[in-house]
Amino acid sequence: MNILFIMYDQLRFDYLSCAGHPHLQTPNFDRVAAKGVRFTNAFVQSPICGASRMSTYTGRYTSSHGAQWNGFPLRVGEMTLGDHLREIGVGCWLVGKTHMRVDAKGMERLGLSQDTVIGARQAECGFDIWVRDDGLWGQGPDGFYDQNRSPYNEYLKSKGYDGENPWADYANAGVEDGNIASGWMFENADKPANIAEEDSETPWLTSEAIRFIDQADGPWLAHVSYIKPHWPYIVPAPYHDLYGPEHIAPTIRHDVERTDPHPVYGAFMDSKVASAFQQGAVRDKVVPAYMGLIKQCDDQLGRLLDHLEDTGRAEDTMIVLTSDHGDYLGDHWLGEKDLFHMPSVKVPLIIYDPRPTADNTRGTTCDALVEAIDLAPTFIDAQGGKVPDHILEGRSLLPWLHGGLPQWREVAISEYDYSGTSVCEKLGLSPRDARLFMVFDGRFKMIHAEGGFRPMLFDLETDPEEFFDLGKGAAHQADIDRLYGHLGKWGRRMSQRVTKSDAEIIASRGGSARKGILPFMVDGSEVPEELTQTYRGPVRQNHTTSESEGEER
Amino acid sequence: MNILFIMYDQLRFDYLSCAGHPHLQTPNFDRVAAKGVRFTNAFVQSPICGASRMSTYTGRYTSSHGAQWNGFPLRVGEMTLGDHLREIGVGCWLVGKTHMRVDAKGMERLGLSQDTVIGARQAECGFDIWVRDDGLWGQGPDGFYDQNRSPYNEYLKSKGYDGENPWADYANAGVEDGNIASGWMFENADKPANIAEEDSETPWLTSEAIRFIDQADGPWLAHVSYIKPHWPYIVPAPYHDLYGPEHIAPTIRHDVERTDPHPVYGAFMDSKVASAFQQGAVRDKVVPAYMGLIKQCDDQLGRLLDHLEDTGRAEDTMIVLTSDHGDYLGDHWLGEKDLFHMPSVKVPLIIYDPRPTADNTRGTTCDALVEAIDLAPTFIDAQGGKVPDHILEGRSLLPWLHGGLPQWREVAISEYDYSGTSVCEKLGLSPRDARLFMVFDGRFKMIHAEGGFRPMLFDLETDPEEFFDLGKGAAHQADIDRLYGHLGKWGRRMSQRVTKSDAEIIASRGGSARKGILPFMVDGSEVPEELTQTYRGPVRQNHTTSESEGEER
Repeated sequence: MNILFIMYDQLRFDYLSCAGHPHLQTPNFDRVAAKGVRFTNAFVQSPICGASRMSTYTGRYTSSHGAQWNGFPLRVGEMTLGDHLREIGVGCWLVGKTHMRVDAKGMERLGLSQDTVIGARQAECGFDIWVRDDGLWGQGPDGFYDQNRSPYNEYLKSKGYDGENPWADYANAGVEDGNIASGWMFENADKPANIAEEDSETPWLTSEAIRFIDQADGPWLAHVSYIKPHWPYIVPAPYHDLYGPEHIAPTIRHDVERTDPHPVYGAFMDSKVASAFQQGAVRDKVVPAYMGLIKQCDDQLGRLLDHLEDTGRAEDTMIVLTSDHGDYLGDHWLGEKDLFHMPSVKVPLIIYDPRPTADNTRGTTCDALVEAIDLAPTFIDAQGGKVPDHILEGRSLLPWLHGGLPQWREVAISEYDYSGTSVCEKLGLSPRDARLFMVFDGRFKMIHAEGGFRPMLFDLETDPEEFFDLGKGAAHQADIDRLYGHLGKWGRRMSQRVTKSDAEIIASRGGSARKGILPFMVDGSEVPEELTQTYRGPVRQNHTTSESEGEER
Repeated sequence: MNILFIMYDQLRFDYLSCAGHPHLQTPNFDRVAAKGVRFTNAFVQSPICGASRMSTYTGRYTSSHGAQWNGFPLRVGEMTLGDHLREIGVGCWLVGKTHMRVDAKGMERLGLSQDTVIGARQAECGFDIWVRDDGLWGQGPDGFYDQNRSPYNEYLKSKGYDGENPWADYANAGVEDGNIASGWMFENADKPANIAEEDSETPWLTSEAIRFIDQADGPWLAHVSYIKPHWPYIVPAPYHDLYGPEHIAPTIRHDVERTDPHPVYGAFMDSKVASAFQQGAVRDKVVPAYMGLIKQCDDQLGRLLDHLEDTGRAEDTMIVLTSDHGDYLGDHWLGEKDLFHMPSVKVPLIIYDPRPTADNTRGTTCDALVEAIDLAPTFIDAQGGKVPDHILEGRSLLPWLHGGLPQWREVAISEYDYSGTSVCEKLGLSPRDARLFMVFDGRFKMIHAEGGFRPMLFDLETDPEEFFDLGKGAAHQADIDRLYGHLGKWGRRMSQRVTKSDAEIIASRGGSARKGILPFMVDGSEVPEELTQTYRGPVRQNHTTSESEGEER
């Protein structure tokens, strides 16, 4: 079996028709949902690209692998999906984005070069590269944001788009009065991108995925990882005007949220991006563009599904659709992601398992508390490997796919390290105190903030839209204590004992006695005959030292 | 300046005359204490050799580095004292024991060979090797406990001691009726070891230390790491009969401890080694031998100190004396170490800083809550380096040595992973639940046990000998809650963000805007002129795609 592991970037869980969006039709996402399982409570380990992805690719919480924000390198030697899959003979390939930053200092310390296969995989988060393109070719006075070079820009140049950065000038820009109208500016979000639709990023990457599949020898996992619908919010015709303000779902926000907010939430509400999304005019332009980008993703997914079906691969390819986090789009007075309201921390997750063992769950939903770190163990399990659960902290989802009712986690955990942001500075926090932890038990969601703040608490049963912060008063202390209990247990979790499996530990018990380590013997009668015989024998006398030498000092 | 970092193995904090032992005179330990600072509340990160040492050498808690028990490999790439010191031009050398187990699988995965300098250091916990000898040359039906070869055994053979393992047959055995009387058996602890005293382990390693010092170019740190007074409990003449039962300090134990004990404590009390030490006859033979081993250590320390003074090195060498854990010796009905009573988890720690800045603290004691992980940062600080506190979790002790009153930690933490022991099996626990956590605030000591047990609690103010477990009732719930609060905070600590320092994080803030990442612009007015100019320019028209192509699909 092969695995097509498709990730969209910044795709909200509720912007799919199968998830109930009122105006956005996504027949191809729905097509996978109809033959697979849609997980309705899937959470990312951190609502930010880099950290979330490093968790997904390692199967470990962000504070276990340490790459807790964009651009924080994943430490050399940290094991990834690719390491685990290759051990069982499965190739692990990248087609698109990872947001991986190499641990250059660590590589140098260990004498590793990116010119070797081992070094290249260390630098690429364990993937072998079909094509890597992180999709953010921002460029300013200090140069490019991304130190890699863009295969997508090369593609555009080969198609005749000119300049150093056609990504910026064509794919992510419209035209106004003969000038470039940058996609970075929300006021341009309603313009068509100045590019032929089939040359835009999503069709280009889909073509790369098809090229990969057509030449691949199984078994393989291909991580097809789209940059869209991530900003810049601009999309080529015809997607730029499929939707208008009348198709925007109502903004999920309430004045009570702005009254004496938690200081961390308050600081994020005051950020530039939040201020922008608080303006109706911004939402009226951006949300339709975001919907257009998703619609384009859906069309390209259809192209990919058709190709799989046409080539017979639909029968031996598991398909996974998910995202690395959502997008506030003005909900809760916020833009972007960062915090833990559902539009940010919850993601779509649809899994199609082609095997007959999954037949009885096709077209169903599962509301178990699923985490992004469950995907890596799911893939290992699906490929017939044994999940090394002393390394991976997630759990295989196969039991859910095969109709089982496994004992499952009681809480989902997500974290956010905002030490790299201006909010940390604004709150006067040290970088190590700029960390948030979410604990969600399916009803109550608590957010702990380091730095001496009170927790936030929401009761999703009475307040499904998460408006009323119950952490303000003392009325919910018992729930807060209970959730801190879960967080405490999680904090003590076994996350770094990665060099020794439970099975190895059990097998080694008592082994030192058979190697002559017996620090409990009074007279030798405590151990079996086979061991005691080594403790008595005739004294040999041929050593050269004398008693007098021994007594000299 | 150089650093002589001397570690004894299994040396109790209270078996020194400067620490108040009633019968054991240790004038040379006292001599260092008289010119340095003696820390009276120094705790190891785990009361077991391997885990404790890996914490001391990495400056990190055991659940941060993951090598949580003897023989659990330290993961490749985990930074050590040697990595940090060499970065600032200080050599870091080993003379003796580390208990390091190489992460062979991790090395292989990264293509590292122990034949290279980098690989050898990875395999040796970051040390360059003058001599490594872990001092446990147990041998049984499954071969040697230690897979390395013993330089000490080679030394003995060169001196004419015969057989494959003269460590076992001479250094750690007496003679009875012409037969070897093994030092493994407590009943032989009163016999003199069948070896010339100067050939026994402690003098041999002292000679190696002197050889190292005499040839070393500074600045250096030498980790002189003795196996003694660790078992086997047998010592050559004249040390074997310096002490008798009349010199043994009273056993610290109380019948109340055996009444309805905490299940984990109860299981350890039932172990073979505990049962042995519950016998007066065992203590009467073993404790005097243990004292004799310490007396020999003290004499050899005197030899080393004399050599430093004779060669002028006493003025430019920091001296540190400590241990990796204590020894119950029958206290609390236990033998060995493993749990968190003071005889096990508290260690001697004496630091002499030769510099004038330390003059005003000479001969004093310090009762701050000090942890073994503080030593690595102390050494880096003493050598003029900046402590990378995103990697090291301990704190430099220099402020204490120099008469400061730094803001200090509120609790000391220690951990114990007993997954590899029969106690885990006996209690029916999974390997990941066989973990204990101690939180000590200077008065109350709480021990949390994973696996669903109640905590243990001792009030050292009213019960300095730790007999009365207050965790049994509900009377101390407030203290328990408070200590769980500390443990919870510790559990959320920043331990794996090792690829990015706080300073680097602060310096990088806002950097993406200068690289063209501006996801907050409504119309471009939000950013300085120098950035906006990149977003507008004439549209170029020379790309080859046509609108009709764009509309095709």
